[in-house]
Order: sequence, then C-alpha cells, then structure tokens
Amino acid sequence: MFTDLTRLVQPTNIAIIGVSSRDGSHGKNTYENIVKQSNFSKENVYLVNDRYDELFNRRCYKSISEIKGVQIDVAIILVRANAVPRIVQECADHTIPFALIMSSGFNEVGEEGQKLQNELQAVIKNTNIRVYGPNCPGLTDLNRRLGMTFSPGYVNDTLGGSIGLVTQGGGLGRTALQGQKRGIGFGYFFSPGNEIDLDLSDCIYYMIHDPKIKVIAAVAEGIKDGEKFKEVAKLALKKRKPIVILKVGRSELGRKAALSHTGSLAGSDQVFDALCKQFGVIRVNDIDELIETSQLFVRCTIKEDVGLAIVTGSGGSGSLLADFCGLNGLDLPSFNTSTIKKLEEVLPPFASYNNPVDLTASFLVDERIHEDSMIPILEDDNIDIVIEPINADYGNSTKILAESLVNLQKKTDKVIIPIWMSSREDGGYDILEKGGLVPFRSIRNTVTALTHFSNYGNFVSSHVEVDFNPNQKEAQRRKDIIVKKRVLNEYDSKKFIGKVGIEVPNEVLAVSKGAAINAAESIGFPVAMKIVSEQIKHKTEVKGIQLNIENEKALSLAYDELMENVTRLAPNAHIDGVLIAEMVKGGQEMILGLKSDPQYGQSILIGMGGVNAEILKDIAIGICPISEQYAKSLVNELASTPLLNGYRNSPKLDVDALAKAISDLSVLGITTPEINELDINPLIVKEKGVVALDALVILD
Amino acid sequence: MFTDLTRLVQPTNIAIIGVSSRDGSHGKNTYENIVKQSNFSKENVYLVNDRYDELFNRRCYKSISEIKGVQIDVAIILVRANAVPRIVQECADHTIPFALIMSSGFNEVGEEGQKLQNELQAVIKNTNIRVYGPNCPGLTDLNRRLGMTFSPGYVNDTLGGSIGLVTQGGGLGRTALQGQKRGIGFGYFFSPGNEIDLDLSDCIYYMIHDPKIKVIAAVAEGIKDGEKFKEVAKLALKKRKPIVILKVGRSELGRKAALSHTGSLAGSDQVFDALCKQFGVIRVNDIDELIETSQLFVRCTIKEDVGLAIVTGSGGSGSLLADFCGLNGLDLPSFNTSTIKKLEEVLPPFASYNNPVDLTASFLVDERIHEDSMIPILEDDNIDIVIEPINADYGNSTKILAESLVNLQKKTDKVIIPIWMSSREDGGYDILEKGGLVPFRSIRNTVTALTHFSNYGNFVSSHVEVDFNPNQKEAQRRKDIIVKKRVLNEYDSKKFIGKVGIEVPNEVLAVSKGAAINAAESIGFPVAMKIVSEQIKHKTEVKGIQLNIENEKALSLAYDELMENVTRLAPNAHIDGVLIAEMVKGGQEMILGLKSDPQYGQSILIGMGGVNAEILKDIAIGICPISEQYAKSLVNELASTPLLNGYRNSPKLDVDALAKAISDLSVLGITTPEINELDINPLIVKEKGVVALDALVILD
Repeated sequence: MFTDLTRLVQPTNIAIIGVSSRDGSHGKNTYENIVKQSNFSKENVYLVNDRYDELFNRRCYKSISEIKGVQIDVAIILVRANAVPRIVQECADHTIPFALIMSSGFNEVGEEGQKLQNELQAVIKNTNIRVYGPNCPGLTDLNRRLGMTFSPGYVNDTLGGSIGLVTQGGGLGRTALQGQKRGIGFGYFFSPGNEIDLDLSDCIYYMIHDPKIKVIAAVAEGIKDGEKFKEVAKLALKKRKPIVILKVGRSELGRKAALSHTGSLAGSDQVFDALCKQFGVIRVNDIDELIETSQLFVRCTIKEDVGLAIVTGSGGSGSLLADFCGLNGLDLPSFNTSTIKKLEEVLPPFASYNNPVDLTASFLVDERIHEDSMIPILEDDNIDIVIEPINADYGNSTKILAESLVNLQKKTDKVIIPIWMSSREDGGYDILEKGGLVPFRSIRNTVTALTHFSNYGNFVSSHVEVDFNPNQKEAQRRKDIIVKKRVLNEYDSKKFIGKVGIEVPNEVLAVSKGAAINAAESIGFPVAMKIVSEQIKHKTEVKGIQLNIENEKALSLAYDELMENVTRLAPNAHIDGVLIAEMVKGGQEMILGLKSDPQYGQSILIGMGGVNAEILKDIAIGICPISEQYAKSLVNELASTPLLNGYRNSPKLDVDALAKAISDLSVLGITTPEINELDINPLIVKEKGVVALDALVILD
Repeated sequence: MFTDLTRLVQPTNIAIIGVSSRDGSHGKNTYENIVKQSNFSKENVYLVNDRYDELFNRRCYKSISEIKGVQIDVAIILVRANAVPRIVQECADHTIPFALIMSSGFNEVGEEGQKLQNELQAVIKNTNIRVYGPNCPGLTDLNRRLGMTFSPGYVNDTLGGSIGLVTQGGGLGRTALQGQKRGIGFGYFFSPGNEIDLDLSDCIYYMIHDPKIKVIAAVAEGIKDGEKFKEVAKLALKKRKPIVILKVGRSELGRKAALSHTGSLAGSDQVFDALCKQFGVIRVNDIDELIETSQLFVRCTIKEDVGLAIVTGSGGSGSLLADFCGLNGLDLPSFNTSTIKKLEEVLPPFASYNNPVDLTASFLVDERIHEDSMIPILEDDNIDIVIEPINADYGNSTKILAESLVNLQKKTDKVIIPIWMSSREDGGYDILEKGGLVPFRSIRNTVTALTHFSNYGNFVSSHVEVDFNPNQKEAQRRKDIIVKKRVLNEYDSKKFIGKVGIEVPNEVLAVSKGAAINAAESIGFPVAMKIVSEQIKHKTEVKGIQLNIENEKALSLAYDELMENVTRLAPNAHIDGVLIAEMVKGGQEMILGLKSDPQYGQSILIGMGGVNAEILKDIAIGICPISEQYAKSLVNELASTPLLNGYRNSPKLDVDALAKAISDLSVLGITTPEINELDINPLIVKEKGVVALDALVILD
C-alpha cells in the first residue's frame, strides 16, 4: 500500500525542470533554496529548460533526456500545467522514480485543469513514476536541511525538530511552521498539494519511520483514501508516534467551504472522529492547538497517569488552571508528605502547600522562595510535569523568574511548562523561549494540549492490538445467503446475522394460518407474530406486528387482523409469510447498525433503543473490525450506559455478550463489504446473553 | 441595594494613611501613581503617617483628625492590618465616605486575619463608611487617569477605553490589563480584594452608569452576594451593557482551589450558569476570551442577525474559519448579486466568490485585488463584519495587506476583523494594531468571541422584560398551608401547588377502606391508590402505590395489600391515609423541581421524566421568577424537547400550559422563600393542560 519515499526525501540527484533566471520566480527560488539555503551540493542539481543553454553559470539541459550517466531521484517540475503530463512521461521514460510537481492549473482551477489532471493521472497509471503534487509548494527537510520548495519563507525555516508536519494546503502549513518563532521546531514540512498520487498518508508513513520524528502534525480538508489513513493510524499507534490532526469538516459550513476550496468531499465527520478515537489519533481544532499539542509530545515522555502539579504566584491563575484541569478530567495528585514538609519550611504560613501551590506574592519579594519550592515538587515522584502560569509581565522580577525556570529545567528530567498569560513580552518571555521552555500563551490551550497528552498516554497503555484473521470459509458461507438479493427480509436478515453467532429468537416463517398455529405450538405460547416482506421496511407503520399472543384462538384472530391491515396499508407488497417467534421479555433494548462509509469503510453505530439514540444522539461509533475490549469501551461511551449496569435496582445486564455481538457484527462488516446497511433494532441485552429481535440487511 | 460610588471613583480630596518614604513601598508607589502618573493635583492629596512631619516636601499629618477644613472623599489605607479597624473607625468619625484598604493580613491569611476582618466588619456595620478592600491593589480610572493603586504596572496603563474591568484577584486583573499591549483599552480597573463591603456587583453597578463604558469585563472566583449580582445583571441587560464574566468553579478541582485561595464558596455552578443565560451575562473561559470578547463589543454595534463575511487569500484558513462558524451556529449569508458581479470582475475565474471568499494567492501578486474585492463586500447590506484570516507573515506583502485593511476600515462603518494566525510579527501586525484593528490571534478565539457577540444581539432583541408583582394576599394564603410543617405529604403538597394554579388530579385522602371505596365511586373507576405519610418519601420503595384499580372488589384487595406492604416495609411510618385519585393516561412525564440555592436564591429545574434527566443530565435551569416566554425557551433547551412536539406521529402536547406551570411555580418560589425543595414528579403534559401526579414539598 505504501512506497518507500527515501529517494524522494533524501535524493542524491535533483533535476529542476522549468527552472528560470527571473528574480522571484518559483524556478529561481527553488534553485536558490536548494543550493544556497540547504545542505545540498550544487553539483547534484541538474537544470532543465529548453530556453537556456546555461543558467547560474551552469549547464542547462534542453530536456531530461539530455542528462546522461546520472540517475535523477527527483524531478522538480515547474513548467506550465499543459506541458506537465508530457514532461512526467519523459521522466518516467528515464526511470526517474519521483516527480515533485509545483505547477498549478489542475483540479483547483475548474474544468480545464481537471482534464489536465486526468491526463496526468493516466501517465501515472501507466508508468512506474510516483508523483508528489501538483499544485504544491514543495517538500522541506529541516533536520538535514533540504528545501525543495519555492517558498521565500524557507530561509526562516531554520529550527529543526521532532515534529513531522504534513498539510494539504500550503497556507495553513506556513501558519504552523511559523511556530518556529515560538521555539517549536519541525523535522519536515510535507505539502502534497492536489494529492494526485502520493497523499497525506504516504507522507505520514515515511515520517513514522524516521527515528528523529516523535510526533506527526497534520492538517487536512479531506482524507483522500480512508483505508490508507487507517493503516498509517494503526502503524503510528503501534510505534507510539502520535498523529495530531486538524481536519476541517465538523460542520456543514466547513464541509461546503472545503469542497469549494479543494474539490474533495469531507466524508462522514462522525466516522472520522470515531476512527481517530479508535486508533489514538489526536484530533485538534486550531493551528495553535496543533503545534502546541505536538510540541508537548516532543518535550514529554508518553506515560500512563501523568502527574501534574501547578505552581504559581497568582492564586487566581492557579484556581483557573485547576478548574480547567478538573473540567477536562485531569487530576492534580497530592504531594508526598516529605514534599509538603519542605514547602512548609519555605513558604509563608498562609500560602497553599497543596496542589495547586500558591506561592503568594511573597516570591516576588524573595526570589529564592520560588526555586526552593520548585525543587521538592520536581523531586516528588507523584509529579511528572510542573505547570507554572505567569499571570503578567512584571518586568525585572519576571525575568528573574524566567531565569529560575530555565535553570531548574536544566537540572531535572521532569518537564516544566510555563504559561505566559500576558500580552506583554518585556524580556522574560524571550528567556523562557530561548531556554527551550516553549511557553504556552493561555491557560485553556495549555490544558487542552495536556489533556490530549494525558489521554494518549492512558489510551496506549491499555490498548491491546488485535489481529483479525477472519475465517474465509465461514465468510463465504455467510455470503451465500445474500448472493442474489438487495434487501433481505427480516427472516433472512436474522438467519444471516445468526451465522456470525448473534442469537436470534426461536422463530419460524409460516406461510399459512395453519402453519402459524403449528409453529406457535412447537415454540410454545405466548408468541409474537410479524409480517415478513422485503417491501415492508417499517412493520409498525402497516400494523404488521402482534405481540403476546396467548393461545390458538388469539393467534387465529391476530392472523386475520394482521393480514387485513397489511392488505389495506401495503396493498402492493409481496408477502413472504408471517414470522412466529417466542416472546422475549425484559432486558434493555439497544440498536446496532453496520454502515458502509464511502471513505472510511464499514463502521458500527450503537445506542440505546427508544428515544435516546434518535433524539438525544447518545450514540457511539466504531470502525470495523472491533475487538470485544474496544466494543466495551464504546458501550461505556454512551451516556445511557448506566441502564445496562443495574440502574435503580434493575439487574445487571450482560455487557460481555453485547460486546461480543458488536465485535461479531464488525467481523461481518469486513468480510462482507457488499453490506450497505445492516440494522439490528432492537437487540435485547438480557441478564444472560443478547438476542436480536429484528434485523434488516440492505446490500449494495 | 447600591451606593453611589462617584466620590470613591472621582474624589476631590484623597488621604493616604500609612504613606511611606521608602522606595518601592506600597505607600510611596501609591503616592507617586496619584501625583505623577495621574491627572490629579498634588494639592488634593493629604499624607497621613504619625512617623513623619513632612514627606515629599509636603506636610504629613499624624492622624486623619488633624486634617481640618477639608472634606476627604477617599482614605487610602496602607497601615498594618491590626491597626486598620481603628483607622477606619477614625475615618468614619470624620465623615469620610469611603475607605480604600490596600493592607493585607485579613481573611486571606487564616485565623488571626479572620479575627481582624470581623473587627473591621463591625466598624463598617456601626458607621456610615463604605469600604473597598482590604487586601486589594487599588482602583484605577484610565480614562480620567487616576490611579489609586500601588501597582508599579500603572505607569503602563495608558490606553483608556470602553471596557470596564473588575476582578476579585489583582493577578488576573493585571493579565487582562496587559491586553493594552494588543490595543485593547480599559476605562477602569476595579479590584475590591476581600470584598468586605463593596463587592464586584457594586463596581459593575457604577460602571454601567458611566456613558463611556460599553461593556463590563469581570473575573470572579465566587460571587459574594447572588442577589446583588442578579440586580446588576438585570440592569446591565436593560442598559444593553453586556457583562462578560470569567468565573472559576466549573469543576470540583476549581472550586477546591478557589476555596483555598479566597475562602469563598463558589455556590452551585449550574445555577450560576443558568443565571447568566437568563440575564444575558456572557460567561467566558479564559482571560484572552474575556478581553477579546469585550473588545468586540467595543468595536461593533449590538444587533440582531449579525452578518458575517470571510475574506482570505488562504483557502484553508477560510474553510477552517467557516467550519468553526458552522459549529457555533453562526451563518455566513450570501452576498447580493451585485456584489458577486463585482467580485467576478476582480477575481480570477477559479477564485471562490461565495462567502467565504477565497481570493487565492493572486492577491499577493496584485495588491489591488484585495482592496477591489473588499470594497463591494463592505458595501453589501447583508454584511456587518468582515473577518480576514491572515495565515502567515509573508513580510512585505503582509505589510501591504495590513495597510490596505487599515485604510479600508477608515472608510467604512462596517467592522473589519483581522486574525493574525502566525507566531511571527514582522511589521504587519503592528500596522494592524496601531490602526485600531485589534487583531485576534487564532481562528477559534475569533469565532468564540463572535459567537458571544452574535448570541447577545439575538438574545436582547427577543428579550422581554417582565415585572412580577406577586399578589401578597394570595401568597399569604399559600403560606398558611405550610405554616407548621417541615415536610408536606403528597396530599398537602399538591393542595399547596394547586393554589398557584397548577392542576392536580381529582383526588381524596381516605382514612379507611370504606372511605376509599366511597372516594373511588365519587371520582369514578379506574383509580390509583397511594399511601400518604410524611415519613415515606419514596412510595415505590415500600410498594405503596396501586394503579388502574378497576372496581370495588379490586380496590378492597388492593387496599389490604398496600397496607400490608407498608406495615412490613415502613413499620415506623405514621400513615395519614391513602390517596384515591383519578387515573391520568397518556401525555409525557416531566419533572419540575424548585430548589433554594444559598447563593442565588430560588431556581427551577426541568427535565423529562424517566431516565433522561437522571442519567443523561438533560435538564434546564431557570432563576425565579420565570416568565412564560422564558419558560418556553427553557423547555426548548432540552435535547428531548421533540417528545413534546409531536414526535413520531404522537400528538403535539400543551407546551403553553407547561410554560405556565413553570412560571407559576417560580412565583411560588419567590413568594415563599421558606421552600427548601419542591419536586413535582411526574408532571404530566397532556394534549390540553398539565397535571401534577405527585409532589413533595420540603421547607427550611
């Protein structure tokens, strides 16, 4: 599914096709970025442009075919759009493995461009060349320093680091990159433009394998290939290199804007959200949240139960910060008694030694108080991270504080996180930033990033990787049932789901009143009777259900009434018969739905029956396949989950069986991609086991 | 309830008691702030300290009583804590109306300080003096320039404005004030410290009356007096001067931290939230949100249906911004056709003329494109505010863009809001800030502030002020019912709520089986039977309810069974009898609860019956009294409100009657403060009318 991009990212030889001598042109900028601003030898750059014989005092080739005896790894293409397909063909013919196409004028400019993009697509399909772009600002490696980019901003991209950045649009990428100004360093900046071939996931895949990269920061307006994204998400989780992603499309307005901007459909945002949750992808909401969260993963070591301490001279800031922590489910552990004892020696009697620690204004008067308080806290083994909100810039005393924090950080393995809350920056801020403490700028943002960090640590520590090896023979047998139909009736639907082990009621499809009576007698009264017809999706609407039928006489009456209703309310439906089924009593009604998302594949939705799921949107979504363990955590996501756990003296229900049914259904999903929609409504969760009372399967 | 603070804020003569000659002392700082950094004549400042005869080349009085022939308006007190009560007494004796106490060492330092604060409290109680403080940094008037503060930061507080700032803690106040660096100006900075007398609400009350103040920004850890806060909230709403408040206490951790920092209980946060919603108080979450939202009210005129447009050269930023708008319920209206026509003339064919407008990178090449696009958009009468995200700092071209925005703003009444998304500030930022455009710094923060602004405009435009003049005689008659009991049984509870017009079932309290039979016959079968006892709060737990009793025989059996149950399960309860009541069928069960909050008074909680309110926390809260109109909006806040509006072909229920019941109950709340708790559970909402099936009243 993935190509090794090493020769694209770390080329030995580069050709620049369409290079230009004009000042400010993309061609000249690109050349200069590579030979002047990068650690890359001029000798390994080959210039191609049929208008020049020589450029920058070097030979300029008329075409790629003139370059002999050297293997070009990357052809950077800057020619006008309509020449691009031909040029790429030439590159392919000369076994150049990668084309990096900066030229614009494709899908992003309407019909004419779409034609060109299709042409280009055909070249890619018929050759071995892999394409990055078109309509992209390039590819930058900040650690090794190679800027294959026309961006005049590259000259400022001097702060390497452990964040691997990939953005679909160049603009938001530049926003993120300018975070260097705050001390946030980046290892790469990928921006694959229109993603005609290599996409966001390919870039992430490459970066996961770079040992210098600790975290991936991504910006997307749409995910081109959901399956590929799922694969890199899984890999990232396995390698403990979190993907932090900002993805547009949470609202209709955003989806519309993204569509008009990139032409790419955003897909179901709910399913994308579920995917992120399931694979530990961290979804963020804004660029500052993206870079700040990523930077936290650079500075801190991922672990379970991160211990946070708050230390401040501003009691109000401490309260506000603690408040945010509590709202986000972050705990502030107590210190060891020895820590508290040491704080008592240092701080005035009216200070707060608890976590949050309020040093009071005393530390502005006596600068040692701050350091003497911090040392025992940093040594406390309950604490991993100390957060210090700095409420205002008080000039010199704030500078002293900043220096103290920088010095303390040098002497500890723990992480000190200052929050520079002020709009002023009179010197203290620079001390912190230059000292590598990368100050946050607001309490909310700090806690948001810490919440992502803490949740990730807890998630990966409990995450169990599950390999699904579906039994192909079994799967085929299930498929045999659905081979010819588009919509399965209730009877067939239940037979189908029964095949994966989900219990269905004891029931018989009867085609006459006599058969119905026989069936009821063999099942045992009371029974339920339901009309069966592929044309009738909602049986209640045609009054096609009779419940609690106690005896033969009642059944006979019920049969007539039901047939009369159906004949009247659904005159054109073909009736397959009536289903005679045992009555299932008690338990909690739930709904389970399997749905195929065009972008992200099969997913399962769960919710309580009745109004909870429909009106209150109390639902949870998982991506197939789903392990039983993860199914349980999905169930626990529901606000109404107490209904399963013995609410108000009702019996505790069989959540294990529910989790197994969800997992089984998810296997059905991946082994039977023909399923467009499968609804079990209701599934009854009993004290022991679950049973699917009704089901409907719709195929592609 | 409120004192006129004009003489405190705009004094003619000030005394500084405890002034000092020591450099860096609060006393000297305060003196210098007043005479050197303020528009205040030295001659009107009187120095008091018994250690000096002369200070700063001026006479220093031994005590306040030495100052003759001049009326001091404000005595600023800086003496040590234990001398403060005596000094305040002296000030009161000399008819000084206000003391501003900066000294600390009171409640905030534990037991010893609490004693002093109590002493001080006694002086206030027994004299006419009003006290601001103690333990406060002072009071600053930035527009007239008078800094009665020891803060060395006052020298930087040079940017006056229309935001009235009040904060309980000085620290977070300073954070907010340093927003001046971003171009956010303030009219006042009140910080009343321990609030022994004058509190946050008094400061707000004063500022509402200042014509230069357009919006109040407040920071609180607890609200000292809920009733006073309600009053200023109402006044602010009436005068259309929004209160924007940051209040700690949304989580348990925050409440604990605030308690240890200020010693003040935070009260019920849910009720505070409800209060804010009901009175149009804007609750924010962080300091940047506080000052940015406030500044938006300074720049923009409050109106209904604010028209927002997005213009940007970064399509990704436009999409992200539109996404946030959608998530927050903000619309992006379409432009007039004439606007679109003008945009077509200016922009390249592949740009997006829609709202959001994507200028594409073209405007970086041709600077006129930006201005030529902005002009028709600013002239479009669907548009009030144009937001321009600036994704990165591109140096010179960004400066040109900034200048263009500043020039455009000069020529229009509409408001231009730039979002400076980058961490770099190479010149363009300063141009915007100096040009008065007060750039936001993130997309999220921009939309958060715009959402507050837009919601406020919509709220006030539909808000109807309601005056409640409860009928005192009626109220007294209701009180007569509850005069001697602490808990009312179901029968009395219903009689009680029936008095305000809430319908209860036709029912009789029967004390024998014979009486029960007679009652049932007069009401008409079927009936319900319920045990009545003040000791039995949960009738179902003692199996004290029998429903659907069809005839005399069944009633006789049911009576025996019920009595047997109760004798067995609640042997010590005194039985008042059984309630025989008509059966009420159909409708939707709701719960209505009246509760007295120690801080904010009576409030009403509503929710659906069953599990929705209890498990899913789908509830709404209103502060008494509640108009019928507002009761309806509370009902609409419930996620489950579709259940009332004809969900799935069920009949539409009588929301008007429900609203009336809520409003009636709220009148009961304010006229009967003795009620500690009143629960109607369930209230049945029928197609016509509502009926309270069960009720329980608990008094103080």
